[in-house]
Amino acid sequence: METKEIYLETLITASPQEGRELAIKLARKSIAAIQPDSEIRKGLRKDYAEDTAKLIASSQVIATEFQTIAMANNFWK
Amino acid sequence: METKEIYLETLITASPQEGRELAIKLARKSIAAIQPDSEIRKGLRKDYAEDTAKLIASSQVIATEFQTIAMANNFWK
Amino acid sequence: METKEIYLETLITASPQEGRELAIKLARKSIAAIQPDSEIRKGLRKDYAEDTAKLIASSQVIATEFQTIAMANNFWK
Amino acid sequence: METKEIYLETLITASPQEGRELAIKLARKSIAAIQPDSEIRKGLRKDYAEDTAKLIASSQVIATEFQTIAMANNFWK
Amino acid sequence: METKEIYLETLITASPQEGRELAIKLARKSIAAIQPDSEIRKGLRKDYAEDTAKLIASSQVIATEFQTIAMANNFWK
Amino acid sequence: METKEIYLETLITASPQEGRELAIKLARKSIAAIQPDSEIRKGLRKDYAEDTAKLIASSQVIATEFQTIAMANNFWK
Repeated sequence: METKEIYLETLITASPQEGRELAIKLARKSIAAIQPDSEIRKGLRKDYAEDTAKLIASSQVIATEFQTIAMANNFWK
Repeated sequence: METKEIYLETLITASPQEGRELAIKLARKSIAAIQPDSEIRKGLRKDYAEDTAKLIASSQVIATEFQTIAMANNFWK
Repeated sequence: METKEIYLETLITASPQEGRELAIKLARKSIAAIQPDSEIRKGLRKDYAEDTAKLIASSQVIATEFQTIAMANNFWK
Repeated sequence: METKEIYLETLITASPQEGRELAIKLARKSIAAIQPDSEIRKGLRKDYAEDTAKLIASSQVIATEFQTIAMANNFWK
Repeated sequence: METKEIYLETLITASPQEGRELAIKLARKSIAAIQPDSEIRKGLRKDYAEDTAKLIASSQVIATEFQTIAMANNFWK
Repeated sequence: METKEIYLETLITASPQEGRELAIKLARKSIAAIQPDSEIRKGLRKDYAEDTAKLIASSQVIATEFQTIAMANNFWK
């Protein structure tokens, strides 16, 4: 595997709130992995931030990533 | 990570009903994280509240968030 | 959080069949939470009950809600 | 809750194969719960059996239902 | 339940790689269960093998089936 | 089952970051399993790398694969 930016050192976060932020970050990093050109991504950004269906689909990805993070943190119990 | 509103202090809720409400809140906060402009979100709101496909997609997000919350609460058993 | 109708007192059901019915109820309540106007919902109902793609998407929501309920009931074993 | 046909007495099946069959049955029963008119369902059937996107979406529902059933059966180990 | 081809005797596989192959097989068998006519399926095959959205949707089904299989095998640890 | 390239020897990875990379690899291998012609896949690549809806759908697949991998690694705790 080629060398890449290390963006995920741990799934453990100090709080549920930070878990949400990590979930959003992971969702964004997946997009960046598939479309590495940041200029193209910027061009696409408006496309999904003002399109309801894409906003909902993005929040589904966040919900799935968050479930994994929450399990990793034993739900911050 | 920049400072953000703290909207999720805990996944623990007093009842399943409150768990549902938290799931809906988390789904909404994901939308707000991607589209921070509340005026644009208000404009989009009618778009999904009267579009069946988007309502169903939204309820899928809620179902996923709720599953995480239910696990965190050991299903309120 | 504002006061709302209590529609989910427990995830525990007497049987798998009742678990299915609860899953369907939860899916419907999510729609109602996003679109509180029952007249609009009635108007949308025909839209999804006769549209295959929306029927399938709805059954995906039910499957996810049911998974949570089944776990809560330790699969009625 | 009104009286309905009992189609799910248990999630326990004798084999993984029967678990698949139950998953397919549950997916179908969800459709029937939303669209109770069997004549309309028959009319829709051709619509999804010959439409690739709908076939894939249906198999996603089956995969989710099967995951629940497999967990209930401790994966038939 | 009518007699059907037995295509799933066990979820246990010798390796993760075989688990992937089983996941793909299960996804295909779901399509076959809904559309039993192999000639129609052949006609649809080109439709999804050259359509990006359908390829991605199919890989979502495989990911879900694989999760179940991986759990059944205790992740081949 | 016919002989195929072995691309998944283990779900265990040294770090969460490598887990993400494996999740992306699995998602890609699913596409390749359905569409084995690498020339056609190259032609499709631009299609999804510049289409927001497909990028989001792809990141949903990655999220699901990653959840499985994270569970296999006991979340790298």
